[in-house]
Amino acid sequence: MTVLILTSEQDVTADMVVLRLNEAGVPVVRLDPADLTNGVALSGEYVQGACRGHLSVGGRLVGVDGLRSIWVRRPGDAAARAAQPSAWLTQESSQALYGMLRCTDARWMNHPDAARRARHKPWQLRLAQRSGLAVPATLITTFPQAAREFAERFPDLVVKPVSGAHPQEPPRAVPTSRVAPDADFTAVAYGPTLLQRRIAKRADVRLTAVGGELLAARKPADPDAGPDDVDVRFAPSPHPWLPAQVPPRVAGAVHRYLGGAGLAYGAFDFVEDADGHWWFLECNQSGQFGFIEMDTGQPIAAAIARWLARDGNPARPYGGDDDRDAAS
Amino acid sequence: MTVLILTSEQDVTADMVVLRLNEAGVPVVRLDPADLTNGVALSGEYVQGACRGHLSVGGRLVGVDGLRSIWVRRPGDAAARAAQPSAWLTQESSQALYGMLRCTDARWMNHPDAARRARHKPWQLRLAQRSGLAVPATLITTFPQAAREFAERFPDLVVKPVSGAHPQEPPRAVPTSRVAPDADFTAVAYGPTLLQRRIAKRADVRLTAVGGELLAARKPADPDAGPDDVDVRFAPSPHPWLPAQVPPRVAGAVHRYLGGAGLAYGAFDFVEDADGHWWFLECNQSGQFGFIEMDTGQPIAAAIARWLARDGNPARPYGGDDDRDAAS
Repeated sequence: MTVLILTSEQDVTADMVVLRLNEAGVPVVRLDPADLTNGVALSGEYVQGACRGHLSVGGRLVGVDGLRSIWVRRPGDAAARAAQPSAWLTQESSQALYGMLRCTDARWMNHPDAARRARHKPWQLRLAQRSGLAVPATLITTFPQAAREFAERFPDLVVKPVSGAHPQEPPRAVPTSRVAPDADFTAVAYGPTLLQRRIAKRADVRLTAVGGELLAARKPADPDAGPDDVDVRFAPSPHPWLPAQVPPRVAGAVHRYLGGAGLAYGAFDFVEDADGHWWFLECNQSGQFGFIEMDTGQPIAAAIARWLARDGNPARPYGGDDDRDAAS
Repeated sequence: MTVLILTSEQDVTADMVVLRLNEAGVPVVRLDPADLTNGVALSGEYVQGACRGHLSVGGRLVGVDGLRSIWVRRPGDAAARAAQPSAWLTQESSQALYGMLRCTDARWMNHPDAARRARHKPWQLRLAQRSGLAVPATLITTFPQAAREFAERFPDLVVKPVSGAHPQEPPRAVPTSRVAPDADFTAVAYGPTLLQRRIAKRADVRLTAVGGELLAARKPADPDAGPDDVDVRFAPSPHPWLPAQVPPRVAGAVHRYLGGAGLAYGAFDFVEDADGHWWFLECNQSGQFGFIEMDTGQPIAAAIARWLARDGNPARPYGGDDDRDAAS
């Protein structure tokens, strides 16, 4: 049984996982959907109630029924590097490839439907609440008056993009920033705005979940940092990320979140307040982990390789308690 | 409890359903996501483990917890008609709106995840097979040699788009067309090609499924039609659509298909062969039904209105037997 990795050629994070799979003697096929019709070929046949599908990558043929698991890392758009690329060819190729892969019994990290759903920030916040995670008071609104009233109730606020998009890819949003409570909220009417109570933090926490395995890392806040240094991605810090213990209550809630979301992989961002409580900010279903592994030495790539290599029940992608009450 | 209809202003098909809901005294809110920030506003608050969301349309305010059902008809792109539209604003607005609606307990026709999955033709064919529908032998391939071998086994073939896209929206694909078995299949290498055994038909069948209700219509083939008149959308026909009985075996299989797909609505296209067997071609989860209702007088709009108006279990969107074995 083969592991299929969908990613671009230049992906050192995938390289780390491929190395572990090679060491374990697990067959791996690495494929960029962008190479469809140009190095990558596919064929699926539906005859007399049966279905047989094949992929070919660099001349190597693999049956889709022989796929054990599929890791959706950083795939390019289907057929984007074809001789004559077009939106039409991308649509046709994407339907053919993903439609065929969706028919297999392979386990997904992460399944495209779960991945798509998991990107919705309002849905994340609600699922986090239902899973028992602490969520800072948050408002998403296009009503200026609602924003003003929220700022009166929670005067220490930050603003950030609703979609959770990274500010610099491409550069069109501001990083998470503080908002003065007497700010002019008139412009809220022109686009949904996410306001969130600022948590005075003593550390940032990144918790990487791989199936049922939780690997947490903690970065203490710079004691010299001002209250305006909110966004850990841009704030200066003298500290590296260090391994951290996951509080049992948080671990249980994270398992419920993953179960409710149907995710096999998730990168959770928390902030730790002065009392040591972890506050949920977001869960990125495709979050990077290389920088954490580099700082902490935590074997995240090895955990992913193990998850991809193992046999298992596709109905339980996250491998934790099968508590789906949190689903919505 | 209110019914929310997401569609554009110009939608006579939605008008038919709204009329029935008004007659029944069921509150309806009709909203085009394109009008977000310009006539449509939203607000969602997440405080102390609870979530409260509101929509405003033309000054009318509705709580999202008061939504009974959501009909995704023909919604525009979020904020497309904003004062200053942009891809960024569309992304933020789409995340805010659909993220908020995904948190409700409302029943969907159809849920966005089920709708997206249901568009994949290879997945449709496999689910149809597993549900017990007769599927004409089909090949989807980028291997010219596989196409040649398939044409030898099934010399009477048609070719059509993999994605099931309508040929004229925009005009970039050919209608379903016959292929000569000795055709030159070299170009198959440049884009996925769907080849299917042509069924010599005596009628086309459109089966509209609304929850558990199945309404079938049949259009006899023109006796003067040549074998090249394959695509019912373009072939001339002297006949209107007429109501038809659904064979019990097909009805059972269609219920399994809808259950496996998690769809509350589906427009199935079949062809009927000389022996009266129905062959599955595709299921369009957002297929039009107005032209069928016009020809046959079948009360499809009323069935949709009933489904939207009723109370029910969101976990069983299609309302038939709860047989999810066909899911994949």
